[in-house]
Amino acid sequence: MTEKAKLVNDALEEAVPLQEPLKIHEAMRYSLLAGGKRVRPILCLASCELVGGMEACVMAMASAVEIVHTMSLIHDDLPCMDNDDLRRGKPTNHKVYGDDTAVLAGDALLSLAFEHLATRTAGVRPNRVVQAISELASAVGSLGLVAGQIVDLSSEGKQDVDLNKLEYIHVHKTAKLLEAAVVGGAVLGGGNSGEVERVRKYARSIGLLFQVVDDILDVTKSSEELGKTTGKDLLSDKATYPKLMGLERAKEFAG
Amino acid sequence: MTEKAKLVNDALEEAVPLQEPLKIHEAMRYSLLAGGKRVRPILCLASCELVGGMEACVMAMASAVEIVHTMSLIHDDLPCMDNDDLRRGKPTNHKVYGDDTAVLAGDALLSLAFEHLATRTAGVRPNRVVQAISELASAVGSLGLVAGQIVDLSSEGKQDVDLNKLEYIHVHKTAKLLEAAVVGGAVLGGGNSGEVERVRKYARSIGLLFQVVDDILDVTKSSEELGKTTGKDLLSDKATYPKLMGLERAKEFAG
Repeated sequence: MTEKAKLVNDALEEAVPLQEPLKIHEAMRYSLLAGGKRVRPILCLASCELVGGMEACVMAMASAVEIVHTMSLIHDDLPCMDNDDLRRGKPTNHKVYGDDTAVLAGDALLSLAFEHLATRTAGVRPNRVVQAISELASAVGSLGLVAGQIVDLSSEGKQDVDLNKLEYIHVHKTAKLLEAAVVGGAVLGGGNSGEVERVRKYARSIGLLFQVVDDILDVTKSSEELGKTTGKDLLSDKATYPKLMGLERAKEFAG
Repeated sequence: MTEKAKLVNDALEEAVPLQEPLKIHEAMRYSLLAGGKRVRPILCLASCELVGGMEACVMAMASAVEIVHTMSLIHDDLPCMDNDDLRRGKPTNHKVYGDDTAVLAGDALLSLAFEHLATRTAGVRPNRVVQAISELASAVGSLGLVAGQIVDLSSEGKQDVDLNKLEYIHVHKTAKLLEAAVVGGAVLGGGNSGEVERVRKYARSIGLLFQVVDDILDVTKSSEELGKTTGKDLLSDKATYPKLMGLERAKEFAG
């Protein structure tokens, strides 16, 4: 684990202390502290560094994007959604705590992300905090993560999923949150508007690539290596890049 | 419907335009625009007026608290939670759109509430916007709405629910969001810290009363009058004030 990932893990550990009501905080910590590569927070920290900002100004955003990412995994894994049993090498949240608690753990994490941004950014100018909150919120909502998931669900088992639709799904399920992480890092780090727009452009270019790599891993690695039920996207007739382009072309695309 | 409720309805209608992906926006609008007394937003507007603030400064908060309230109803009604079929005289969200869409509609509404506060408060000083966001987030999270719901779920069917626990549930499921509405109204309305603390105290005193009245309505009114499945709290062995105190004493308590 990198130095930065360790910093992020410490911040996340501190973000959700174990307190009453115990069950909800246990469930939140279970998924939030289950490992993960912490790609989004690390990109957020890097973006802050790029514009010459201080880590202390941006750690709340780094934590918030990982908290939102975790929330989306918990809800996506629910039986009424993708119905996954395994995530990061462990049983999914609802398998351990029940569907009701898993729904609530996601809700609590989502509001925690915004609370964190509002309360743990002392020293940052409030207009920058408001902008970061706006970036994060639009990445999650009905034109962000949720849009990607609803189109993804509606395309399962259908034959008419083309590359355009697949790109729509991945832009919304993956790229938008990456963009918020990177843009939020630059905003809280004190970047000027030119710098912020430059990192936004950069984030857009890496966002899609990230998902192609992830889709390829899903086909080529075993469940044990990845810690989640692999090959499942193919089994459940979900649209993936390898399925649509063929594995070899997808690997080339990911280049 | 009062003049204020109409203003709130117009703001909510505008907050969720019907756009692609259609299904998620239809689901969000279905529950958000289903009527409701708009008690929380009206209190929010009143609180702003009390400190001499302008309506335009606070409408985003008034909308946000109703959006959060709606989200909590959608998720609480899910089969894995309270399993309700009827709400405000209409089939519940998941009955119409499916459990998956209902989960996502709640998620999208929750993030919309914060986006709204961050983007529709031009003219308000950003430090006040950040404070309002913090109030709202803490009212929803694992020490707010979610805490109330998880303790509520864990107490169903149990014999050891006493008045203390019931008060805990209602303070968290109802009073905290009312408090955020009223405090947020005063904060965005430009109230000084003394005024904000005074309305907070006022909000706390009315929060509990509100729930006692609601519990009594659940026992004494018919489903048709209320537009939700009444008597259900008693049937499902949920702790309510009338059950614990007896209907007559609860009525007295509600004054």
